Amino acid sequence: MGVHRVTGIVQELESILGRGKVYDDPAVVALYSREPSGLEGFGLAVVFPETAEDVSRLAAWAYRRMVPLYPQGSTTSLSGSAVPENGVIVSFERMNRILEVSVLDSVAVVEPGVRIAELNLELARYQHMFPVDPASQAVATVGGAINSGAGGMKGAKYGTMRDWVNQLEIVLADENGTRMTIGCRTVKCRQGYDLVRLIVGSEGTLALVTRAVLRITPLPEAAPTVLGFFDNLGDLVDAFLELRSAGVQPLLAEFLDARTVSIARRGLPGFENVEGHMLLVSVEANREAVERIQAQLVKVFESHGAHGIRVAGDLGEAEEKGLLALRRRLLPAQLEYSRRYWGAPRVQVFIEDIVVPPSRLVEAVEMLNQLTEDYGLPMVLGGHIGDGNLHPAVGFDPGDPGAASRVHAWFTEVMKLAVKLGGSVSAEHGVGMLKREGLRIELERLGSLKALELMKAIKRLFDPHNVLNPGKLF
Amino acid sequence: MGVHRVTGIVQELESILGRGKVYDDPAVVALYSREPSGLEGFGLAVVFPETAEDVSRLAAWAYRRMVPLYPQGSTTSLSGSAVPENGVIVSFERMNRILEVSVLDSVAVVEPGVRIAELNLELARYQHMFPVDPASQAVATVGGAINSGAGGMKGAKYGTMRDWVNQLEIVLADENGTRMTIGCRTVKCRQGYDLVRLIVGSEGTLALVTRAVLRITPLPEAAPTVLGFFDNLGDLVDAFLELRSAGVQPLLAEFLDARTVSIARRGLPGFENVEGHMLLVSVEANREAVERIQAQLVKVFESHGAHGIRVAGDLGEAEEKGLLALRRRLLPAQLEYSRRYWGAPRVQVFIEDIVVPPSRLVEAVEMLNQLTEDYGLPMVLGGHIGDGNLHPAVGFDPGDPGAASRVHAWFTEVMKLAVKLGGSVSAEHGVGMLKREGLRIELERLGSLKALELMKAIKRLFDPHNVLNPGKLF
Repeated sequence: MGVHRVTGIVQELESILGRGKVYDDPAVVALYSREPSGLEGFGLAVVFPETAEDVSRLAAWAYRRMVPLYPQGSTTSLSGSAVPENGVIVSFERMNRILEVSVLDSVAVVEPGVRIAELNLELARYQHMFPVDPASQAVATVGGAINSGAGGMKGAKYGTMRDWVNQLEIVLADENGTRMTIGCRTVKCRQGYDLVRLIVGSEGTLALVTRAVLRITPLPEAAPTVLGFFDNLGDLVDAFLELRSAGVQPLLAEFLDARTVSIARRGLPGFENVEGHMLLVSVEANREAVERIQAQLVKVFESHGAHGIRVAGDLGEAEEKGLLALRRRLLPAQLEYSRRYWGAPRVQVFIEDIVVPPSRLVEAVEMLNQLTEDYGLPMVLGGHIGDGNLHPAVGFDPGDPGAASRVHAWFTEVMKLAVKLGGSVSAEHGVGMLKREGLRIELERLGSLKALELMKAIKRLFDPHNVLNPGKLF
Repeated sequence: MGVHRVTGIVQELESILGRGKVYDDPAVVALYSREPSGLEGFGLAVVFPETAEDVSRLAAWAYRRMVPLYPQGSTTSLSGSAVPENGVIVSFERMNRILEVSVLDSVAVVEPGVRIAELNLELARYQHMFPVDPASQAVATVGGAINSGAGGMKGAKYGTMRDWVNQLEIVLADENGTRMTIGCRTVKCRQGYDLVRLIVGSEGTLALVTRAVLRITPLPEAAPTVLGFFDNLGDLVDAFLELRSAGVQPLLAEFLDARTVSIARRGLPGFENVEGHMLLVSVEANREAVERIQAQLVKVFESHGAHGIRVAGDLGEAEEKGLLALRRRLLPAQLEYSRRYWGAPRVQVFIEDIVVPPSRLVEAVEMLNQLTEDYGLPMVLGGHIGDGNLHPAVGFDPGDPGAASRVHAWFTEVMKLAVKLGGSVSAEHGVGMLKREGLRIELERLGSLKALELMKAIKRLFDPHNVLNPGKLF
């Protein structure tokens, strides 16, 4: 793959897309070849299509020339699903318009490059929201979230991307770069096999998404919120179970383990002395019910031994009072902790994304702590208790030659632990390149290796020349 | 296909499944070969598997012998998706256990033959519900609802089956009758391509479902409910839009057009004199907010000219006060109306199931009325305004040789009308046999005939010998 071929490709791309949409300056390409996962790839060029027609021409070209395309939103992937390998990076950042918001039809129509936070800003004008809120939503795009099947903090109540996409316009990598619309504008839709949800979460390996009709929902009127600390993790889980049994399905139910709290509290005004496992619960409610539900939450927290309790009436107030701050400090806390632990100025943080049934959470945390101690790694641990999604994170010194392989071995054990507890190797970050082995482990344990065969056959149907994000998932 | 072959098949099936699970008495088989759609098929035998192992042996046998299997719940299909054609009917009525309810994990684990109403009765003990509520839920099974991708009255707020299935155990019609588990127990799950949602709504054509892990959700605390009548359908839609703009996403938003009201009210105590288009809106709420929301609904209804307004504080009270009775009388009203219209003692009712964006509802109703008048058919019309799902129903005299073909022509025009308005030919009843042409019309209009090719190729991947519910969808 020499310079000559690269030059040829750039010229071909320019003749297809026009000037000003193709970049092959190595510094620019390198910017689009990195993920926060620490993975880095190599792209031949970055292209910036502006219309579905551009995308269609690109896809037909890639099919004909057998050159891989790597679709990309804001590259916030943590699993290697946005890493290019010797192909053309397709950035959707210029296809970033909100085309329509219809409250009557409960939909927003958007191009894939729209950022989720930006969409929510627009929807707030209509008293509505798009409820899938990955931690990266300030920059994460709708297209990236569709491809990665993203989740977020509201997963237990609102589900994930698959539940909020009604219709897609997609482009296939075939001879004609076929553009087609799949699914319906309406939430109800019986259109044969559900191709929309085959694309959601397919990590860009089946088709390129050029437009989406998303479901939207009203903003909650109020959200009584309670934060507390428990000496015993079992008590924390019991408190949560009592709430669920009383018919409460929280909007948020976030937790941090005690070790992580002791790290994350440092320098956080008002939280310097908190101790124990943190539970934060926020419940959608009508404004008249705020006091009663707040009192109900506090009572349940207290009856299970919680201390250091703080309350708020809605998420705005919770934000002002700092109730979300500890949870938000998961990543910075990990960085700080790892720097001290290794005495290294630069550390690489690795964020895991397993999910276990909430009923297995106590076991999962105990096993994770033991495992991480065995591997001699510094871990912080938080997660979404409502849906069982855990994000253990470890830091390592990238200068230490043995560290990366120890982290890799730990990572494999963490995935096995999730599968053993009836969970899954990835809740919301996706398989990408990092969890290909994990996916196989999980399906093997379920006795479902045949599913992997079917998936590969589906891949061949949609992308016969294997030019869409190759090397991901399988 | 003579008696000999039938006998041979029964013996083979008995040797596979054991005695007492295979019936070929023509009277029994005929009972399992009919749908409320009026369609009737011909089955060679009915089998009643009791375990996934039974199903696996059946599937392997069907693959080897190339004999079609027709999976069946309670045969409440309205689209011909449960009609057998010269094959073996697989009834799941003996696989009808609720295996587990876990409030902490927000799931119910069930066999496919469990009835939805029965599941909800059990879940009510835990203050929970399964929110997908097709009109047939008293008898409709979970397995049937999965295969048909069912919806219901709560669609606008809670979506459809695809949003409420976490994990499936399925059996493939291959050499080994492969049993496998797909998806996760948890709502968050990134397991490669979403095979679960490929099965949901596939109408039994890809695999046989032998167990399901369903998401469950708390019962609403209260549900202020208002019923009113509008002289003008545009005013009714505007009232609904005003509520949506105020951030209300109703639990129920049902309507009947004025002609239908004038038929359905007959003999209904307290409703004999109501006139106009009916709108029923019910909103999930905390109990403290019932009065305020009730007053808000009444105010919006009144400001758009509604009369005959009635209110209730929750669905139980709405039921007691008869607020749901008119809507429930859609089918009986149609039967009565058609009998008078045709002067025939026996009529066949045909229930349509299109969906249009709620913003196109007024046009849709006007076009439907015109179209039905042109065809000289008696129509009643109701639907779910929140999700745009319309159920126009016409009756005809099955003794009149021209009637069925006139209804068929009407039916095709209704589907075209839905597609023209940016809607879909089926919202929740499925494609089955009756809408195969409709599916093609819809995909052609979307420029998506390639999707049909992909669907057929997926069918061949999963069911290479075409023995699972052949003749449906395509």
